[in-house]
Amino acid sequence: MVATDNIQKTPEDATFKLAAYLKERQRLCDTALDQAVPIIYPEKIYEAMRYSLLAGGKRVRPILCLATCEMMGGTIEMAMPTACAVEMIHTMSLIHDDLPAMDNDDYRRGKLTNHKVYGEDVAILAGDGLLALAFEFVALQTPQNVARERVLQVVVRLGRALGAAGLVGGQVVDLESEGKTDISLETLNFIHKHKTAALLEACVVCGGIVAGVSSEDLQRLTRYAQNIGLAFQIVDDILDITATQEELGKTAGKDQKAQKVTYPSLWGLEESRVKAQELVAAACAELEPFGQRAIPLKAIAHFITSRNH
Amino acid sequence: MVATDNIQKTPEDATFKLAAYLKERQRLCDTALDQAVPIIYPEKIYEAMRYSLLAGGKRVRPILCLATCEMMGGTIEMAMPTACAVEMIHTMSLIHDDLPAMDNDDYRRGKLTNHKVYGEDVAILAGDGLLALAFEFVALQTPQNVARERVLQVVVRLGRALGAAGLVGGQVVDLESEGKTDISLETLNFIHKHKTAALLEACVVCGGIVAGVSSEDLQRLTRYAQNIGLAFQIVDDILDITATQEELGKTAGKDQKAQKVTYPSLWGLEESRVKAQELVAAACAELEPFGQRAIPLKAIAHFITSRNH
Repeated sequence: MVATDNIQKTPEDATFKLAAYLKERQRLCDTALDQAVPIIYPEKIYEAMRYSLLAGGKRVRPILCLATCEMMGGTIEMAMPTACAVEMIHTMSLIHDDLPAMDNDDYRRGKLTNHKVYGEDVAILAGDGLLALAFEFVALQTPQNVARERVLQVVVRLGRALGAAGLVGGQVVDLESEGKTDISLETLNFIHKHKTAALLEACVVCGGIVAGVSSEDLQRLTRYAQNIGLAFQIVDDILDITATQEELGKTAGKDQKAQKVTYPSLWGLEESRVKAQELVAAACAELEPFGQRAIPLKAIAHFITSRNH
Repeated sequence: MVATDNIQKTPEDATFKLAAYLKERQRLCDTALDQAVPIIYPEKIYEAMRYSLLAGGKRVRPILCLATCEMMGGTIEMAMPTACAVEMIHTMSLIHDDLPAMDNDDYRRGKLTNHKVYGEDVAILAGDGLLALAFEFVALQTPQNVARERVLQVVVRLGRALGAAGLVGGQVVDLESEGKTDISLETLNFIHKHKTAALLEACVVCGGIVAGVSSEDLQRLTRYAQNIGLAFQIVDDILDITATQEELGKTAGKDQKAQKVTYPSLWGLEESRVKAQELVAAACAELEPFGQRAIPLKAIAHFITSRNH
């Protein structure tokens, strides 16, 4: 069970403190994720899954899911299994992306990547295990006060965000684009819409579905999420250039080294910053009808562009 | 839509023809799987997914699912999305198992393995894509005459059969056991219960869940499936020794070459054959209460031990 008695409810005043809000919800997510993966025989696979899942991520995705559910009148308990599932899917995508056959990364979140610790074979399986658990967890743990049809819709959205129409499709185009310096803005947008924005969108949309939103509100949530998804990627590209490895917790300057086409390489740093801010403004505009209840999601949108790691 | 008008219904007489039954249902599954994965942009990932999914498998798993659903009073239409999902999960596990970091196999079902054709990176992603699609497909395509709670139960069972408590867990212990010649029967049983039997069990059990079986019948189905699952693996081990590469469609004699502990290496070939037949008999005994409707599942159980590839 998630203990939420002492948790700050969705704030309806202007004294909202984002840092405290994020910290509180991060702790809730960490606890739920910790409980979601026990260590039993065969220990190695559970340890490998936990190694990456509990590596101290910012939990932006699950927090987006919880915040949307609360904004739309639902509770943290209703959305927590879905929130855990999106973090499991996100973690799985990082483990597989870091593999030698893919991006071949040695560091992630300031720690050795999964395959550097457990070997490639176990890392592949740890990803598969997290993915399987994500779907099992949503279907099994979502409380009964969420209509079963809504839970199935969440499964559909998560599957789509992860599969060839989402993350996997974006990653394939990204791999095909490697080493090419003539990537069009259209292709770059496709990659990031699918690699990054699709899962962020699923977080927000599924948070709404669990709370039982109307189809009109679902459209608003979708546009909010798509805008912050692209802003998130632009900021990631900027940070790859401007931040240090220590700040990022992963290899810095990788894009430039690989002569990768990025938003800053197309638009320049300053123009990229402006675009990211415009996207965040557009995202927040979508939430106007939700009034004071939208404060956390708006603050998270601004947080995304102001972060330095 | 699946055209089932001319399909032989679950037979209730002794003139049952297994070969025709399997062929008919294999064709139905092939058609449904073909329709489940279109080729759209980015084509490469869909082609890679289709390459392994439509590589001419025997469709034992989806047929088990359909047959169980029919035996318990359900229809082919009710179980087909679940049947497709188990084949997607099975295919994904083969793609990942064949990777250089895992079993490093070049041939599967008589064709080059996925990574030999599309590269390791795309093969990893094709597996992930099939896995995501499996869950999306069940949740989206199962017809409305199947209660939503049952569909969620299917999602749970599939996730569990695939994850660390199933396939993935079995594969990890298998990898840890590699090169060891002192593997106990207990460990060997663990590996195969998880690597092979868990998904076979899910096929049968999910077919029953979709049809709305009682918990007592679910227990019977579970025991039937566990018995044929183990028999299936014993026969696989026997065939690795006795069959040619041409018959198997994959590298033969791999176990012996790797000095792998197998059932025949523990019991000898003849004793292994006897054990497999005993397991099939025990499996069929579980189905006695279902009378004539159990004929296909009994025939499939016998088919598993008499196959030569």
